[in-house]
Amino acid sequence: MKIAYPYLMFLGDAVDQLAAKTANGVKVWRPEWCLGQFRFPECRADLGIPDMSIEQAAEAGVKTVILGVANRGGVMPERWVDELVRALELGMDIASGLHVKITDIPALAEAAARHGRQLFNVRHPTENFNVGDGIKRPGKRLLAVGTDCSVGKMFTTLAVEREMHSRGMKADFRATGQTGIFIAGEGVSIDAVVADFISGAVEALAPANDPDHWDVIEGQGSLFHASFSGVTMGLIHGAQADALVLCHEAGRPHMRGLPDYSLPDLTTCMDLNLRAAKLTNPAARFVGVAINTSTLPENERADYLARAADETGLPAVDPMDTGVGALVDGLAS
Amino acid sequence: MKIAYPYLMFLGDAVDQLAAKTANGVKVWRPEWCLGQFRFPECRADLGIPDMSIEQAAEAGVKTVILGVANRGGVMPERWVDELVRALELGMDIASGLHVKITDIPALAEAAARHGRQLFNVRHPTENFNVGDGIKRPGKRLLAVGTDCSVGKMFTTLAVEREMHSRGMKADFRATGQTGIFIAGEGVSIDAVVADFISGAVEALAPANDPDHWDVIEGQGSLFHASFSGVTMGLIHGAQADALVLCHEAGRPHMRGLPDYSLPDLTTCMDLNLRAAKLTNPAARFVGVAINTSTLPENERADYLARAADETGLPAVDPMDTGVGALVDGLAS
Repeated sequence: MKIAYPYLMFLGDAVDQLAAKTANGVKVWRPEWCLGQFRFPECRADLGIPDMSIEQAAEAGVKTVILGVANRGGVMPERWVDELVRALELGMDIASGLHVKITDIPALAEAAARHGRQLFNVRHPTENFNVGDGIKRPGKRLLAVGTDCSVGKMFTTLAVEREMHSRGMKADFRATGQTGIFIAGEGVSIDAVVADFISGAVEALAPANDPDHWDVIEGQGSLFHASFSGVTMGLIHGAQADALVLCHEAGRPHMRGLPDYSLPDLTTCMDLNLRAAKLTNPAARFVGVAINTSTLPENERADYLARAADETGLPAVDPMDTGVGALVDGLAS
Repeated sequence: MKIAYPYLMFLGDAVDQLAAKTANGVKVWRPEWCLGQFRFPECRADLGIPDMSIEQAAEAGVKTVILGVANRGGVMPERWVDELVRALELGMDIASGLHVKITDIPALAEAAARHGRQLFNVRHPTENFNVGDGIKRPGKRLLAVGTDCSVGKMFTTLAVEREMHSRGMKADFRATGQTGIFIAGEGVSIDAVVADFISGAVEALAPANDPDHWDVIEGQGSLFHASFSGVTMGLIHGAQADALVLCHEAGRPHMRGLPDYSLPDLTTCMDLNLRAAKLTNPAARFVGVAINTSTLPENERADYLARAADETGLPAVDPMDTGVGALVDGLAS
């Protein structure tokens, strides 16, 4: 899977800005790829980029229409289908982050076949993976792990990739979720892989590389999340990470979606993740902590980071605020 | 999924006894369900039960034909299909442990539909599971974990179920792999579930029950197995086990399929499994160690078990040799 850019961001009839969260993430990290947005009149999301019709997008050179939006209900509205068929006719591919498979929509499947275009279901991996073999491979890898889900692993790893590039280091962000896949143009929705192949899929996603090349792997879930820990475990073992970054959100009241479960403290979380990581890379180590402090009053944020640094003995950053330079400093050594 | 018994064990043209390993496991644990075996003339496996034609099986009252055998190549031979169509015509269901889905074989799908029979692909769960919610549920659960794959988790849990029944305890074996599913008549091939739903599938497999009822859950993989640890982690978190049994095979030279990986020692393995288990059940504890000592000379086996008991401070049994009474003793308290 390689999604061609530039993109038209298809927002459809999104009910609010949150419904276009995925599209917004793509626009933040790949603004140069996002030539325009397609919105029906009642759409209440706005990426702040030019509105375009399907025809205008084709003229502007768009290669792929991105469905990075939650649609209402499980069924794709007829007018969406009509517009998307037109996009296929005009030579564009479609990449979808919806739960419904766009390849299962007959009108889209037929139009794609007729016009030789591609349909990508980024939530539904189609590749056949091998089971992980755990064999040590060259190249360096960094993996983000977390105290919980949705604590900034994607943001942190994208920021690390950008920082590495700015220092002239060889680095590739490796996407494991739908937003990341649109941003990278490729990747694997690791939580949608069959359980037996989690670590094998990660081995394929971040394969052998130059000794001085970094794969910066987006994490998923948490070893402390009762719903998704299996995904995280397989991700850790497949990554063979040299460097780990612990991600956390300040003030999170409980594990996401699990009101009965409190978050682990940072050092407990690091200890268990490190034990797991050492199975496939005995040299694995934490290089820092990335904390989303935006939930705190502004005058408390620096103290929070200082305490985290003190508690862990590692650099503690807020990627949106302080940047991630301190994390990358530790990787040259 | 509920597979009706009694069974006809379809061995086809199995090349040797090992190719019929699954069928053999079913016959060992459910001899009263296995009325006969179906073999082509060149079949080199033998379960030691009466040979039957499809017609004889129907007359004997067989309800389901079990494909518990590895077939050569990925394609089902035409003569297998012919016999299985005949079985459907005569009112029997078919349950398959093959990688190929029997529902994808048009002749079988059509015959099943025509005669109102069921086709089960036990390696391919069709149920839609929820993500795990981690909410504490009543009933007691025992889970087998292991230093490695294929170290006797199924055998151990089946032996525990049998021992519990012999003591008048309420207990159900819960199958997580294909052989176990044929033995139980139901279950989930947990390694074939989509990664996001591993713990949720286990919550569905071993649901809320009477306070004095034990679900005895077959384990899979190992937290120390670089290929399958994600499956194991989700299984542990979904099980909310009160009691854990550590399974091991004496003398295993390296992790199964991974020549570069040595096995963890017993206490290291128990420690990591217990930490994981305590996330969803803080009262989780190990009640014993089950070791397959058949790989050792007969005069070394008792010493090996004694050393394991000494090292772990827990009863150490060989289920095939000493039975599992000592494991169940610890569950009454």
